[in-house]
Amino acid sequence: MSDQSDNIDSAVTSSVDIDKQHVDALRLAIAAEDGAVLRQLLSKEHPAELADRFEQLSGDDQALLVELAPDVISPALLAELEDEVVEDILPLLEPGQISKAMKELDSDDAIQIFEELPKDRRAQVLADLPEQDRKEIEDGFACDEETAGRLMQREFVAAPEFWSVGQTIDHMRMQHRQGEGRQGGDNLPDKFFDIYVIDAHFHPLGYIPLSTLMRCESDQVLKNIMDTNLTVIEPDLDQEDVAYLFEKFHLISAPVLDADGRLSGMITVDDIVEIIQDEHTEDMLALAGVNEAGLVDTVWSTVKARAPWLFINLLTAIGASLIIAQFQKEIEQLVALAVLLPIVASMGGNTGTQALAVAIRALATRDLTSANAVRVIRREALAATANGLIFAVVLGGITYAWFGRPKLALVIAAALVFNLFCAGLAGILVPLGLKKVGADPAVASTVFVTTVTDVIGFLAFLGLASLFLL
Amino acid sequence: MSDQSDNIDSAVTSSVDIDKQHVDALRLAIAAEDGAVLRQLLSKEHPAELADRFEQLSGDDQALLVELAPDVISPALLAELEDEVVEDILPLLEPGQISKAMKELDSDDAIQIFEELPKDRRAQVLADLPEQDRKEIEDGFACDEETAGRLMQREFVAAPEFWSVGQTIDHMRMQHRQGEGRQGGDNLPDKFFDIYVIDAHFHPLGYIPLSTLMRCESDQVLKNIMDTNLTVIEPDLDQEDVAYLFEKFHLISAPVLDADGRLSGMITVDDIVEIIQDEHTEDMLALAGVNEAGLVDTVWSTVKARAPWLFINLLTAIGASLIIAQFQKEIEQLVALAVLLPIVASMGGNTGTQALAVAIRALATRDLTSANAVRVIRREALAATANGLIFAVVLGGITYAWFGRPKLALVIAAALVFNLFCAGLAGILVPLGLKKVGADPAVASTVFVTTVTDVIGFLAFLGLASLFLL
Repeated sequence: MSDQSDNIDSAVTSSVDIDKQHVDALRLAIAAEDGAVLRQLLSKEHPAELADRFEQLSGDDQALLVELAPDVISPALLAELEDEVVEDILPLLEPGQISKAMKELDSDDAIQIFEELPKDRRAQVLADLPEQDRKEIEDGFACDEETAGRLMQREFVAAPEFWSVGQTIDHMRMQHRQGEGRQGGDNLPDKFFDIYVIDAHFHPLGYIPLSTLMRCESDQVLKNIMDTNLTVIEPDLDQEDVAYLFEKFHLISAPVLDADGRLSGMITVDDIVEIIQDEHTEDMLALAGVNEAGLVDTVWSTVKARAPWLFINLLTAIGASLIIAQFQKEIEQLVALAVLLPIVASMGGNTGTQALAVAIRALATRDLTSANAVRVIRREALAATANGLIFAVVLGGITYAWFGRPKLALVIAAALVFNLFCAGLAGILVPLGLKKVGADPAVASTVFVTTVTDVIGFLAFLGLASLFLL
Repeated sequence: MSDQSDNIDSAVTSSVDIDKQHVDALRLAIAAEDGAVLRQLLSKEHPAELADRFEQLSGDDQALLVELAPDVISPALLAELEDEVVEDILPLLEPGQISKAMKELDSDDAIQIFEELPKDRRAQVLADLPEQDRKEIEDGFACDEETAGRLMQREFVAAPEFWSVGQTIDHMRMQHRQGEGRQGGDNLPDKFFDIYVIDAHFHPLGYIPLSTLMRCESDQVLKNIMDTNLTVIEPDLDQEDVAYLFEKFHLISAPVLDADGRLSGMITVDDIVEIIQDEHTEDMLALAGVNEAGLVDTVWSTVKARAPWLFINLLTAIGASLIIAQFQKEIEQLVALAVLLPIVASMGGNTGTQALAVAIRALATRDLTSANAVRVIRREALAATANGLIFAVVLGGITYAWFGRPKLALVIAAALVFNLFCAGLAGILVPLGLKKVGADPAVASTVFVTTVTDVIGFLAFLGLASLFLL
């Protein structure tokens, strides 16, 4: 609900940068163990602003701050903080404070907090909640992680098709009046953007954006003004697919059904924006071989998130170098091979990574599908070969100028064309293949592709050299 | 506005996958040059669905389709298609069809279409527009690309602070009544989510979400229910920063001011979702060294988008191999060096890429700022060194087992630790440095980092070998 403040000067642009001074002030107050100053620093501004500053602190400072002034962790601030931060500070709070926050927040935010609660404290917090809130949490928790059912809020506004616009607005006003003064406020969601029109069995028939409701005459019947082109969400739909539907149809909210097709919840676009960001982070880190990352991570958790992929990289690098080992005699005879070898591999790796990044993004945005895969594969292979031919001429020329051996120049040129062709193909086929078998196309694909380009680069260059050169 | 259809069965989940059959049906109709079937295939569904299918076609097929049935390119479909596709098909449409579409759409969509119009046809299309629409386009075009002013729509709802809830709703109903039957409909935006409360000078004082307006009594005065915690957007703010403010404060819409601080437009969250996707694609492609990519690209445009970065990669790879060339004698003496060399470089490259991906995402989400940069740099350096130590033991052991030379094992272990330390530092310092000088931290950073890891890997391994081994 709105802030009823008299200070109309607050309508100003928020800075798009986090202010180092504010964070430093927090650090100083923590070092001085001054709870009063901390409270003052963390009381006035928008919870999103506070969350940003809080997250700039190290894990130790965060813990100290919570210890010094646990009351600054308001329900709204908890809802704003990143999951991993919430996970770290919940154990430092009293169970009563946690259940109070969960009571106040919409059910989707409450569930997100509950998810981060240590298992042994969940029962206690649940017991503190009113019956209805408890049931909502339990229902949400029964759904798989990262599905619509887990994500949705249980609060939404529905109206029967035979109601008029006036009746609908009156109903909302009445709900609000009834809620006034009551803890937790009215039963309406904090914010909503659409009204879902339902039949007698609570099945959705259509929706009416509030902006439509606003401009229609009071005596209009909902049935006649609703948009029946309604996108409904199944409870077990993956959050990535939910986000896709929101993007595609420019949804602001969408109803979630239960197993019987009855309305059971609502997802709003602000949650979707977060999911899109999370999925982006996941893709980019997966491509770079990082399991997960947060900026409050310790050195040790950073090492743990990265070592497994480095280990796989080590194995594949050793595998590739076994190929070089087969050509030790050739290298002894012509050490220029060792000098030039990394260039062939590097160009292949880069070409593969280019194709891979384009494919991963196109898969994520659903621009690359089975309907155009063949065309895209052909294009990647042709483009990589074309670049192979261009750079074969360049690198062949440089090699000739450098070492004065025309045959060496021809061998490296041929190896480059072949390696780039394979790189382009691998860059598109690996993610498509992973997707086909139901795996995340971003995870492990970089290792696959660069292994292909290393192995083929080494094999083609050294193999051709041994055949034609020595 | 809502679709007033009687077919209430349409309230079904939309598929999250693009149907290959539908795209194939389009291809068949195009091959048969059957405009009637094309019209039928492209008439019924949601424009977003049609746009997805249209975009699966090759550029040639798209052009043929437009030629066969130009009328299927409805204003709504034009608004849904990606910019690059719009750019390709606009030259195939009559100017009258384009100006008609621009008249019907909200001004932000109209400007996006106008942007893609060939320069020599812009004047003609503008002349076809009514005075007000033309001025809106010209005003938007006066703002820089990718700024709030270019992005916003000129349609929004504002009300003076002394109006009551009832008055405000009555006003919207009146606007709507006046617009009925008129081409282009009422003057209200197609969809809106907040009402901006203004003073006599059109300066914003606060906002009221429609869901708040709905639940408040009719005689409440706007001033008393508005939220003064309003995020306003300057017209020259970069779209990436606009997106950040939307994410941070969970905005659904935000008002844009003119140079005098008066309300001049509105940005809505559905445009922000698109921007977030675009910015993410940009980051991922920049990291992989691709200038831009679309799936309807031809082979030639694909080559052009990738060759420049491959060329830079070639130069840096040759630079690194010049280092190897300094150690040709050592390699001739001990060819195992050539065998092992790529492993050291590959592990460094991977470590650098990991740190880089984490940094780029953290910069994009504003989790990495000047307030915590020092802590993150330290963490990256320590984590990379820790991984260096772990894998030095592993690789040292493998090297000893493989070649039976304890000194070689020690040299490769030392080189690995040093290279990984430098890789971790480069992975965080390069993007931070690029950001500091005002460049995009994603562009060129991969090339920088892998050059560092190649050069240092080669230099450390071969240098140490030449000092201690031979």
